[in-house]
Amino acid sequence: VGQIPQDVFVIADAKRGDIGNSSSKYAKAILNMDRVTAITVSPYMGFDSVNPFLHFSNKWTFVLALTSNNGADDFQLQRLSSGKYLFEEVIIKSLKWAEVSPGILGFVVGATHPEHMELVRKHAPNTYILCPGVGTQGGDLQAVIKHFAPRVLINIGRHLLYTENQEDPFKAAQKKAAIIQTEMAKWF
Amino acid sequence: VGQIPQDVFVIADAKRGDIGNSSSKYAKAILNMDRVTAITVSPYMGFDSVNPFLHFSNKWTFVLALTSNNGADDFQLQRLSSGKYLFEEVIIKSLKWAEVSPGILGFVVGATHPEHMELVRKHAPNTYILCPGVGTQGGDLQAVIKHFAPRVLINIGRHLLYTENQEDPFKAAQKKAAIIQTEMAKWF
Repeated sequence: VGQIPQDVFVIADAKRGDIGNSSSKYAKAILNMDRVTAITVSPYMGFDSVNPFLHFSNKWTFVLALTSNNGADDFQLQRLSSGKYLFEEVIIKSLKWAEVSPGILGFVVGATHPEHMELVRKHAPNTYILCPGVGTQGGDLQAVIKHFAPRVLINIGRHLLYTENQEDPFKAAQKKAAIIQTEMAKWF
Repeated sequence: VGQIPQDVFVIADAKRGDIGNSSSKYAKAILNMDRVTAITVSPYMGFDSVNPFLHFSNKWTFVLALTSNNGADDFQLQRLSSGKYLFEEVIIKSLKWAEVSPGILGFVVGATHPEHMELVRKHAPNTYILCPGVGTQGGDLQAVIKHFAPRVLINIGRHLLYTENQEDPFKAAQKKAAIIQTEMAKWF
């Protein structure tokens, strides 16, 4: 981590979430690292599992709302008796918890769910979205930009990382990144 | 971990849960450790986040169902449109996923929820329960034994670990453990 340039935003994609006592310790261990600016947090255990991460000023906590993987259907897209999806309840409650906290709240919403992005923005019109799922998972880059820009961080991992079968892996990654950047520039 | 006696059941209370690709790597990193027999897993991300842990024969995956902390109310006890609680849906789906897997499935159900234990056993009559919340969190040991014994692992952490203010911390922990054992023996 020490070798990462100062102007790179480092997100610890740790997906932590534990009882309050353990979450505080994870928060300290990870968010106190000098170059780490953000963490991802899993909300299943509720308030006291998320809250400790929100106590670090100028650090970001991205709560998993609607993730990019297929399994998102299993629980996140369950309808509650209120008519809302579980992921909406996660967004609504987390926003309330963050009102009085020094940390900065964001949400993880996958690019693979264009049909739910409007709903995300209804509840969280100004919140930053960390958006995986463009690239290997085949997410919808245009929908991401339409609904979430400019408050969105699009992270592309495996699509760029796994180029080891190419003749020049570094060049191959550069080329892929350039294609995505050109694509993005169209919609900004 | 290497110094733990061979007959001690080691649970990595890691509460992992990530997209399939990352979950497989967590599963390998943790469950391939020689003395680790079990792991705890957070179900928010659904099937492909839980499934990789279930692919290790003779290793146990305890899925978070109804945790012992206050935050359990926020999402786990949300009612779904089906009338079920979210934690019931987690139990039902996880049991289905484990049907074809070589690993052994269990659930985390906190001792702080005596009113829901019957419901847990309705869905999972034979599944092992990992039960935190006795001790510092004030859970109901009698209810735990009534509903879950003999297929239950009661883990008591902070209540025994944090005796550093006592004159002889080791003796103080021994004494506390003996009291709980006597209490448990009454109901077996």
